[in-house]
Formats: sequence, C-alpha cells, structure tokens
Amino acid sequence: MTQRKVLRVTNTGDQVSLNLHEDTLPSPASYEVLIRIRAASLNYRDLVLVEGNYPASTKPDVVPLSDGAGEVVAVGKDVGRFKVGDRVAASCTVHWIGGPHLAEYQNHSVGFRVDGMLAEYGLFHENALVHLPAYLSYIEAASLPCAAVTAWTSLYKATPIQPGQTILIQGTGGVSLFALQFAKIAGARVFAITSSDEKAEVLRKLGAESVVNYSTHPDWDQEILALTDGKGVDKVFDIAGEKTIVKSAASTANGGVILLIGYASGFGGGLSPFEVLRRSLTVMGSNVGSRTNFEDMLRAMATHQVRPIIDRVYPFAEYNEAYERLKSGKQVGKVVIDLS
Amino acid sequence: MTQRKVLRVTNTGDQVSLNLHEDTLPSPASYEVLIRIRAASLNYRDLVLVEGNYPASTKPDVVPLSDGAGEVVAVGKDVGRFKVGDRVAASCTVHWIGGPHLAEYQNHSVGFRVDGMLAEYGLFHENALVHLPAYLSYIEAASLPCAAVTAWTSLYKATPIQPGQTILIQGTGGVSLFALQFAKIAGARVFAITSSDEKAEVLRKLGAESVVNYSTHPDWDQEILALTDGKGVDKVFDIAGEKTIVKSAASTANGGVILLIGYASGFGGGLSPFEVLRRSLTVMGSNVGSRTNFEDMLRAMATHQVRPIIDRVYPFAEYNEAYERLKSGKQVGKVVIDLS
Amino acid sequence: MTQRKVLRVTNTGDQVSLNLHEDTLPSPASYEVLIRIRAASLNYRDLVLVEGNYPASTKPDVVPLSDGAGEVVAVGKDVGRFKVGDRVAASCTVHWIGGPHLAEYQNHSVGFRVDGMLAEYGLFHENALVHLPAYLSYIEAASLPCAAVTAWTSLYKATPIQPGQTILIQGTGGVSLFALQFAKIAGARVFAITSSDEKAEVLRKLGAESVVNYSTHPDWDQEILALTDGKGVDKVFDIAGEKTIVKSAASTANGGVILLIGYASGFGGGLSPFEVLRRSLTVMGSNVGSRTNFEDMLRAMATHQVRPIIDRVYPFAEYNEAYERLKSGKQVGKVVIDLS
Amino acid sequence: MTQRKVLRVTNTGDQVSLNLHEDTLPSPASYEVLIRIRAASLNYRDLVLVEGNYPASTKPDVVPLSDGAGEVVAVGKDVGRFKVGDRVAASCTVHWIGGPHLAEYQNHSVGFRVDGMLAEYGLFHENALVHLPAYLSYIEAASLPCAAVTAWTSLYKATPIQPGQTILIQGTGGVSLFALQFAKIAGARVFAITSSDEKAEVLRKLGAESVVNYSTHPDWDQEILALTDGKGVDKVFDIAGEKTIVKSAASTANGGVILLIGYASGFGGGLSPFEVLRRSLTVMGSNVGSRTNFEDMLRAMATHQVRPIIDRVYPFAEYNEAYERLKSGKQVGKVVIDLS
Repeated sequence: MTQRKVLRVTNTGDQVSLNLHEDTLPSPASYEVLIRIRAASLNYRDLVLVEGNYPASTKPDVVPLSDGAGEVVAVGKDVGRFKVGDRVAASCTVHWIGGPHLAEYQNHSVGFRVDGMLAEYGLFHENALVHLPAYLSYIEAASLPCAAVTAWTSLYKATPIQPGQTILIQGTGGVSLFALQFAKIAGARVFAITSSDEKAEVLRKLGAESVVNYSTHPDWDQEILALTDGKGVDKVFDIAGEKTIVKSAASTANGGVILLIGYASGFGGGLSPFEVLRRSLTVMGSNVGSRTNFEDMLRAMATHQVRPIIDRVYPFAEYNEAYERLKSGKQVGKVVIDLS
Repeated sequence: MTQRKVLRVTNTGDQVSLNLHEDTLPSPASYEVLIRIRAASLNYRDLVLVEGNYPASTKPDVVPLSDGAGEVVAVGKDVGRFKVGDRVAASCTVHWIGGPHLAEYQNHSVGFRVDGMLAEYGLFHENALVHLPAYLSYIEAASLPCAAVTAWTSLYKATPIQPGQTILIQGTGGVSLFALQFAKIAGARVFAITSSDEKAEVLRKLGAESVVNYSTHPDWDQEILALTDGKGVDKVFDIAGEKTIVKSAASTANGGVILLIGYASGFGGGLSPFEVLRRSLTVMGSNVGSRTNFEDMLRAMATHQVRPIIDRVYPFAEYNEAYERLKSGKQVGKVVIDLS
Repeated sequence: MTQRKVLRVTNTGDQVSLNLHEDTLPSPASYEVLIRIRAASLNYRDLVLVEGNYPASTKPDVVPLSDGAGEVVAVGKDVGRFKVGDRVAASCTVHWIGGPHLAEYQNHSVGFRVDGMLAEYGLFHENALVHLPAYLSYIEAASLPCAAVTAWTSLYKATPIQPGQTILIQGTGGVSLFALQFAKIAGARVFAITSSDEKAEVLRKLGAESVVNYSTHPDWDQEILALTDGKGVDKVFDIAGEKTIVKSAASTANGGVILLIGYASGFGGGLSPFEVLRRSLTVMGSNVGSRTNFEDMLRAMATHQVRPIIDRVYPFAEYNEAYERLKSGKQVGKVVIDLS
Repeated sequence: MTQRKVLRVTNTGDQVSLNLHEDTLPSPASYEVLIRIRAASLNYRDLVLVEGNYPASTKPDVVPLSDGAGEVVAVGKDVGRFKVGDRVAASCTVHWIGGPHLAEYQNHSVGFRVDGMLAEYGLFHENALVHLPAYLSYIEAASLPCAAVTAWTSLYKATPIQPGQTILIQGTGGVSLFALQFAKIAGARVFAITSSDEKAEVLRKLGAESVVNYSTHPDWDQEILALTDGKGVDKVFDIAGEKTIVKSAASTANGGVILLIGYASGFGGGLSPFEVLRRSLTVMGSNVGSRTNFEDMLRAMATHQVRPIIDRVYPFAEYNEAYERLKSGKQVGKVVIDLS
C-alpha cells in the first residue's frame, strides 16, 4: 500500500469545500507515527469548518476531524511510546500532555491546524497519541477524543467529583451523555433535562436518576430543586449558554460549580455578579482536556467497560451524509464514519 | 469593674435604632473569653443593619460590629488557646476555623447573630479568636477581621498568588487596599482604577504599579490591557458588580480569575457565558475567610510589618459620626471607633 | 427519665479502671444537644486508654468512646442544626468542621478530652454532630466516626480518588474495610493483603479484585506488582508502619501516594529519602477527618447503601467483653456495644 | 557560518570521554529552532555523565548539558512561538509543558537523550524553549533550567508558599540558593544551615534571616526549632538525604512538608512511618518542573530583578576546568561556560 484516500477542506476564499484526494502515503519523521485510521467521528466544530464559519485560521487543505482511531503501521526512529500494531487514538491537540490549558496548544489542533482523521492513513506526533483498551472497538474509540475528554475533565474542575455528589446534564449531545456515564462510574447522582420523553428514556437507561422534559416543564430549574430537597445540584454542565445560564444557576446548590460547555442558544445573556456572589457559585469554562486526562478516562472506562453511545455509523463513501446527520441535530450520541 | 457600656441595635419592627446601655459585665461560660474591647471598626453591612435594610435575621438587641480588638480579662475553665492579658481580635464568624465556607457559619456571625464589638467588654467563644502580633495597635487590629481577611483569602482562590502575577483592584475601599498590600508582600504586581488623582496617589504610595483614573478614562479596561502588554491581569477584584463586570472581564487575561467582592453598582448585569467560555475565565464570589486564613494573614503581616490604612478614628461617644463617615463614601481605608 | 447509666474511666495515678455510674441527666447549654445514645463502637485507642497507656492527657473521669449514635432528646436554645428526634452521630473532634487538621482540635476529642459515647445519654456541642441517613441502623452508624472517616478522607489526600485508580489495603481492620468499600463506590480497583484465606474471602466479597495472603506470600509486594502489570498501585493504605513501609513503597506506582494509617508493627523502620525521590512518591500521615468529610461520606454511603462490616454486637452490660474482643485482634470489622 | 564547534560524550563501553568536534550546522525541521548558544551551565548529573556513572541510557554521542541560553538564528516553518533574534533558554525536558511529571518526559531530557547546550549552535523543539527577560544576561540565564526551576516548583508543592511562611534550606548549592531567593520574593522567611561562616555570610546577604553553621552546631535541628519559637519550619528543602532526613524532620513544623532534593550523603537512612504520622508530615520528592513552571519563574524573577548567583565563568576552551570546579564542591552558586 503506497497510496491513501484522504479528504481535505479546500478554502478558496470564496468557498469552502470538502474534497476526496488520493495521494502517496507519507512516511513518519523521527517522532511521528503512521496510523491506519479505522474510524473517525464528528463534532459540531467540524461542521462549522466545512460551512466556512470556523472563527480561527486553519492549515491550508487540512484533513478534517480531530476524532478518530486506528492502528499503528509505522513509527519514526525516536518514537518511544508506540510500536507497529498498537491500537491508538489522538488527543484533540497534539502537545497538551498534562496540566492546564494553554493558548499555544491550539497551534496544533488536530483536524484544524494539523491534519486530522478523515483519511485512510494519517501521521501524528507521538505526543498526541493514546493506547486504546482492548474492549473498545475502533468505532467506539473514534467517538471519544473531543466530547468524552471534555466531559471527564470537567468532572474534576474546581472540585473533584465524589460518590454521592449530584450533577445536572442538559440534552443528549456527546458531552452530556459522556458526563452522565462518567459521573455514574464515579458514584455520583445524575439529573438531566431534555426535550422529549424518548430522549428522557435514553438518559434514564444510561443511569440518570430523574429526567425533566423541559418542553413540558419550562420551569425545569424548579423541578431540579424539588428533586434535590430544595438544595440544587453540586455541578451543572451548561450546554446552551444564553438561554440556560440563569436557570442553570437556579438549579445549582450554594457553593456549587457551573461548567460552561456550549453556547448553542446564543452569545449573550449572563448571570448577575450579585447572584454569583450571594450564592458562592463558581462559573468556569470547559476546555477539552490533556492527553493525561484522556488516559485517565480510558483507564476508568476500561475498568467499568463503559460503552460510548453511537448514533449512527456511515461508510467512508457517505461522509457527506454523516455531516448532514450532525447538522440535523437529531442524533443521540456520536456520529461516526467507518474507514476500515 | 462590674458594669460596661454597650451599644445595642433595637428593632421594633417599625424602626431600627442604635442605643447606648449600661449593664452588668457577663462572665464567661466554659469555652468563652471575656475581652476588654479597645477598638472597633465599621464595614458597609454594619451600616445596612442600623438603616434597617439587613437582609437576614439577627439576634434581638444585638451588639453591632464584627470588627474589633482588645485584651483578654477572663477565660472560661475549658479555654485552651488564651490566657488573661492576651491581645486578640475575633473572626467574623465564630466557628469557621478552616476549610471552605459553609452556610451554617452565618448562624454565628459576629455583630449580627452573636454580640459584636461596639462595647467596652464582650464575651466570645474561643473558636472565634486570634492572637494579635505585637506590632499592631488595637486601632489597627480592629480594622482587619472583615475586609483584610476577605482580601487575603481571595488572593488564594482558584489559583494561589505568585510573585510576578498581576492583579487589578478597584477603588480605595477596605478590601481593595488590603488586597493591594497583601499582593505586594506576595511579590505580585498590582494595577488599580480609582475615581480621582488624589486617591490614585494613595494607591501608588501603597505600591500600585499603575493607576487608571476611571472618571477621566471610562475605557479603563483598555488602559489595563495596554499596561499588561495586551494580555490583561491574572486576577481581578471586582468591587461594583453590575457596572464593572464586563470591563473587569475585558481586563482579565485568558485563563484568569474574577473575584466578586461587592455589588455597589447594582444587582443586575452579567457576563455572557460565551465570554467566560471563550476566554477560559473563572468567576467566583468571595466569602470573608476562616480563622486559619486570618491567622495566616496576621503571620504574613507581622513578617512584613504591614500597616492597615486607617481613614479616621472616632472616640466612643462619637459612634454616630463614625457611621456617618462610612455613609459618606469619602473614606480611604477603615473607619475606627476608639473604645479604650 | 432523669437518671442515666454512664461508664467513666478513673485514673488514680496508680491504676486506670472503667466504672459504671448512675447520675442525673445533664441539661444542654445554649449550643448543646442531649442525645439518647443507642450504640457505641470501639477503636484501638479506646483500648489503650483503659489499659493506662494513652499518651496524652484526658478529662478526669471521662466517658470513653468517640464512636456512637443515637437520637436527639433535647436541644439548647441556640442550636440551629438539630431538633428533637433527629438521628445523629458525633465527629471524633468537636470543632473540626472543615479544612485541614489543626492541633487544637485534639483539645476537644470525644471520649478523651470531652465526654464520649459509653452512656445512655450524652451532651454534645452541635458543631460535632452529623445527621444520619435513614437506611443506617444505630449499630451501623456507631461504627463510623473514627475508622470510616479516616478511610474516606484519606482517599482524597494528595490526589483525589478516580474511577480506574488502583489502591492497596492491608488487613481486615476497620479503616481497611471502609477504604475498600469507599474506593469501590468511587469506581476504583482495590487490591488487598491479609493473613488468612478466610479473611481473603471476606475482602473479595466486599469487592477486592485480588487478595494476597501475606503469610503464604511474604513477598507480597511482588505479587501486587504482578497484579498491576508491573506498575504498582496509585495509593497504599499502610497499616503497620515499621514492618510494612518498605514493601508498601515497592508496591506503589511511580508518583503514587502512601498513606500512613497505623503503626501496629513498631515505631522504627523507614523508607530511604533516595527511594522517595527516585520514585516521586508522596508519603503522608492520615488524621481522621472533619465533620464535612463525615457528611460527604454519609451522603456517598446513603447513595450506594454501603453497609459497615460489624464484627460483633455486645449488650451494654457486657462492655468488658467488647473491649476483650478488640484486644484479641480476631475481629473482622467493628466491635459495637448496644445501648438501646 | 555553516560549521559549529560542539562537544560530544563518547561512550565506547570501556570508557567515557568528552570530545570536541566540528560539524556542519544542522537546519531546523518544521517545529525546530536553531539557537546560537551563548552560555551553558553545569549540574551535578552532568559530571556523573562524563564520569561514566549515569544510571540511565543516553543518546549516542550526545551533546551534554541541559542548561544553556542563546539567541534564535533560524526557525522551522511551523514554529509559532519564536522568531529569529529571540533570546531563549531550554527546559530540561523537551515536552513537559505543564502539569505533573511523567516518566515519558525523560525520553527527551536535554543533554542526555537529546542534544544539549555545550556547542556553539543547537537545534531544539520549540516545546522546550522559553523567552528570556531582557534584564538577564546569557551567562545568568544559562544557570537556570535545572536548579532554579527545581527550586521554584518545589515552593509550590503540597501547599503553595505564602508570605510569612518559613522555609529551611541546606548549603549553598544551586537549588538551595535559588530556593532562598524565590522564597524571599514570595514574602517567606528563610532559615539556612551551612558548613562555614563564609558561606553563612553569603546566605545572609541573599536574605536568609538566620543561618546555622552545622559544623559547629551539629544539633542544628535544635537551633532551627529555637529560631522558630519551638514550632519548626513549614517547609524543608532536604539536600543530602541519608544523613539529614531525621534532623530535617525534627526541624519541620507539625503538618509541614519535606521536599527531597538530593541524596549527597547516601542512599540509605529513613524517617520512621510513625514519625511522619505522629507529626502529620508530608514527604515528597522533587522533579525539576515544567516549561510553564520555568515561565512563571522567569516572570517572577523579572518582576523582582532576581540575579542568579554565579560561582565562576569559564571560556569555552576551558570546559574541562569547569567540570573540575563542579567536582571540587567548592563552588557557591552555578558554574558557567561562556560560549559567546
């Protein structure tokens, strides 16, 4: 095999398009690893990229998608952590191995500033890679880097999750479902809000103690308070920003933490400083996580055989349909492309 | 001496008033300490109390003022940490010895739920008391419990202050001046905004590296950015809430911390969740601090001979004038009543 | 009921003895709570006290035992957190509500410096008390204050326990069994060593993944390494000190934490500084925990309906037999006295 | 300039030697930076390497010395953080950007597993590099990477340094002197022990509050206790291991932290677990630090214009004398080679 199929995002200035190419297989530099990619998964920002709305600069003709998994087929001479045959996935940013987020890590964001996973083969610096536990399929593993690591890392922000703590998740997107699953294996109690009884049923099956349908209960913050003896939850994963933040805060216990994950409902709104002060809240953003967070998460998942929720799997040729599925907003769990 | 002069806040339901009484000196229960109070100091919430606007319940006929200092004249039989003659001050809440704030600590808030410092003598549970370093006068020590401990504790919230870090303080109120002094002895760089060139001069003398007059520079956030190479500061002590929070955030470095101290400018306003997320900010309230925080602060102050900034000292008989001074908003530093 | 039966430890200087008294029921001071004690439990240091070997001073004629549970029958006028009928237990030290351990907390250690639980009724400062979850019997709740809180608190020392982390416990004493149970609900993997196959079976039933019999495998550190792919565990609860510490360290992963819980095997021995440095270990002592730790633990236990392991329950009249049982070292789990 | 002078450590199996070569200037790969090295500095382990006693594997013909500084003369096409003309130094391990130490970072330790600083020019991955503040000369900057970063990072281990805290340093080696200087700018009080009155004078000039001559006062732990009102210090930087650890512990306050830095006096010895437990000590090793630690340190140094203590500076041609100086153990501060 000396050729590979690869998708690239071309930006002519006027127009952004996603095009299939066939090129010569690259060979690894000293610290690089060549991977036969078996599956890749989509996140919301991948959609933003191909729609031409990505707010930051990207590598010209970048191979998109940060999330993917595959097996090692060649390693550079100085690679120390991997060998041919290893099953791997990549962290969303290449050099964030541990510690807090730094702006510079975005200079090597996979699928944006360095080539990503929508290809049969790809080269990655070994700093980016993690070993996969045997129980996870490539399809499952491909769903983890962005959403799952965000969820895991956020559970430990400000105060580490403990058995018996309470958390609130919102909706059935990737981060929310992973947060639910990870909070459960950490022994916490999970409450959720969602838009339909069907989705509520999914959440309950994954371990949510109680689920509030916010379509029929627009005063969902009051429901969450009632479910927690009037105290509110210890941690909220706020997913929508502008339209949820006030009720998210009202659902939070005094001294609790609000983790801002997304801003689907708008860029405005806000919580009054008085309310944050009066109730001793901590409000902070979420930033995916480091490779160490990814590895800790995989260890925990393997211990508890946590299975990611996969919405649909598309064959390579139907990559456009995968993007469409994500755009529809109808998915529950992750949308994956099979590259095997 | 078997009698004492004492001020009490009487609330008839219709009206709140501050009245001078003379009563028999109380004697300490097993874990209590009797103090000859030498000085007491006012905070904004003490004013709110006598104006009848305090938002929580208080002890009937409570002796007001949390902040004071004096010497031990008698101890209960089980008191272990103090002896007659010791120079002491009290923490703002009696039983908060260490760790994070708990709602229950407010059940024993000095000057509100238990008797405070505006008296010649007072009884305090030994849990509340700290030993004073010799270099501090009673007038100086009386200025510390509420404002100084808030400032000290906040410097260690979310991330501990380090030499070379940058902080922004606002105005010349008690917490702001203490934050400036404490940040300096911790080796940090301090920037400030204030309303007049006279106050700016005070701030500079205390060690502020640069001071922006926000009356003449309403775009003070841009000035702070310019002073910090466009990065913004690591920590902001936001003092006014509604009208400052957006510019406070604009003055903060990515990944920085905004500590909410006051809400002088209103109960509304707010920072958009998107902005907090995009810039990885942490926004959190401030809660005075524990007795351990108070003791750590005193140790640091003694090491560096930090002198609190005292605005004016009033004799006991002029306690009404002291309240008036605070009401005027003209003070720079703390307003103290001499009870010696 | 105006009388109570109560045991007191009398120390004549020559001799220490435990004697049954009957006295008038005390009434609560303003912040005190009177409890009808239903059960009490023994720890090793309680035995040391009646054997006359307790290394610190105690209250004359102290009522022994820190661990107990019962119901509130009267409250002082200023008690805010309890009402008659509440089911409660006490923290081992009265005023340690939160934060790190301070030496002063030992001035009010229950059963040593203030009266403890071996009585039909007892008075306690409300700072000491916790509310019991409904699912726990008094017998079970009485077993918790010292051993369980030590185990819980230690899981969060240096680094918080995470799902997938590995810990090693030693033996079947109270702290070890609770550590096993709590590590399991936090999602961790637990390894254990013990002296017999019978005890190994108990440990496995409680969730230990693998148990090494150290009588038949004196090189148990090698076994633990083999069970953890040669890496060693993330945390060790070292229970015996002198004779275990070197093998405990050999069983610990690089960067791991050794929590020192006991010193049953002697006061000497030691780990070389070079070894600690070379392997980036953290070695630290354990100090029971605060009332907040106790409350967090109870919340976690209630969520997962964790049941303490009770060795035997003795009626009040057979309190001497209870002390004998503890002295025998044959118990698995806690020895409890029924005071109902 | 297309040639460079470079020293390489040759290991024939029988013999280790340090040899001067002249080779073609390498050109930077995509993320590499070419540096004109102006100064390099020696650490103890550099001596161990050329003496053939280094306990781990190294790159064949490695260029020695982790510590150095110079200016950027060329950058790879994907380098984002540096441009030609920037003044830089390198972190001791290339990819440790933030967070806790990981074993894998040693795979790219500068001067051991990747080429180091004893050359006119060198190539470094941009992950390793830091920007130098203008006030530091290359000679000064070259002294920092290993010793200074170790000292800085250790001040924040277990508990962050605070103004008024007390620390004990031992001797006049690089880490000890930097710890003294950094603790001072953080507002702490520093005590020291050393072997001569001359060295004591150096320590006092750098800000040590009191210095004990351990040659004349072999019971130096008692002296430290006397100097701290019998309490002991909050943190000890133990430098010698086997022969100091017991007295280091005796000099530490209850609840204090012992940081293990070196093991000059031997690989044995040890502190009994009972002592660690009884006094609530934390004993932990030190591991240089991340590039973020390095950058935080430089920011603090620049704010306070901290000047490293340089023992002697040798011209490039006298590199052997520099190694000899280090071997003599007579130096106070860092031994530097001028490569300009």
